[in-house]
Amino acid sequence: MKKRGEIKKFYHYSFPMQAALVTCKKPNDGVNAITVAWHTPLSKKPPLYGVSIAPSRYSHGLIEKSREFVVNFVPFKLVDKLQFCGSRTGRKTDKIKETGLTLDESEYSDTAFIKEAYSHLECKLYDSKKVGDHTFFIGEVLNVMYEENSFKQNLINLEQVEPSFYRGGKTYTSCKKDIKKF
Amino acid sequence: MKKRGEIKKFYHYSFPMQAALVTCKKPNDGVNAITVAWHTPLSKKPPLYGVSIAPSRYSHGLIEKSREFVVNFVPFKLVDKLQFCGSRTGRKTDKIKETGLTLDESEYSDTAFIKEAYSHLECKLYDSKKVGDHTFFIGEVLNVMYEENSFKQNLINLEQVEPSFYRGGKTYTSCKKDIKKF
Repeated sequence: MKKRGEIKKFYHYSFPMQAALVTCKKPNDGVNAITVAWHTPLSKKPPLYGVSIAPSRYSHGLIEKSREFVVNFVPFKLVDKLQFCGSRTGRKTDKIKETGLTLDESEYSDTAFIKEAYSHLECKLYDSKKVGDHTFFIGEVLNVMYEENSFKQNLINLEQVEPSFYRGGKTYTSCKKDIKKF
Repeated sequence: MKKRGEIKKFYHYSFPMQAALVTCKKPNDGVNAITVAWHTPLSKKPPLYGVSIAPSRYSHGLIEKSREFVVNFVPFKLVDKLQFCGSRTGRKTDKIKETGLTLDESEYSDTAFIKEAYSHLECKLYDSKKVGDHTFFIGEVLNVMYEENSFKQNLINLEQVEPSFYRGGKTYTSCKKDIKKF
């Protein structure tokens, strides 16, 4: 039997979705990291990736200024870092320092990436659009890096990597190793 | 050790992502169904949901004409239907008939939804934007429905429902029942 969901929580009915950690360059040094679940690939040529961020978030202004960001995919064993970076503001906290995550220099961007991520996309701001109460930042992907053995022929190796999915509220899950292949 | 991924397959490095079945009204009767992995919530107020679709796809023109679509979330046991609807064109095939999926009338839309879906979002076209080689269709969510017991307090009940995730190529996976709660 079908029941009606709460419209103000409509997005929960599309979860779980991957929880990614977006790094954004701070004006002087270092980066802020924000956990996002509202993000998607958009185009192949050029390679475009979109992330929806509320204007109130510290990262929103950082991306507007630096005009770049990195999308980092972090394994489930570090899910407590994702929860931390999704629930604190970088205005008051150095989230990288607090979480103990480590940074490394991106090759195609001035925004550092998270070393513990099993893959990351280095993006230059291509366009942005106000969409309702959020801004949809569209990045052109200039570089893709991954941790050795975590992908095989461009496909994630679920024997090696456990991705992090956000289920809503303060809850997360991961995906099965089993693959259905057609 | 970090390795470089193929930029033309950048989106695989963000997978797995939920494979959703988007229904689009045909000009006369019935719907076409297209499997998408490039989709995301965008805004709370108004409630907005975005789907990226290539102009070559039959569904692209259907959404442009009808100015609505429904995002259906289908359980993993029907993953063969997802693969079918992602790899065939509705120009030549009645995908609903071929897959044996069943339709029911939406309450807030003229586009039918998939009865076998455990949740669906009825969307009216709010805006669309050409983004690289795809069109990003932004729908305002007018109604959210779910199958009884598949959600509890707006959160998916993974004891009852096994969502479908696309891993790239012709491969799929699902998510674990275990939940990490903070």
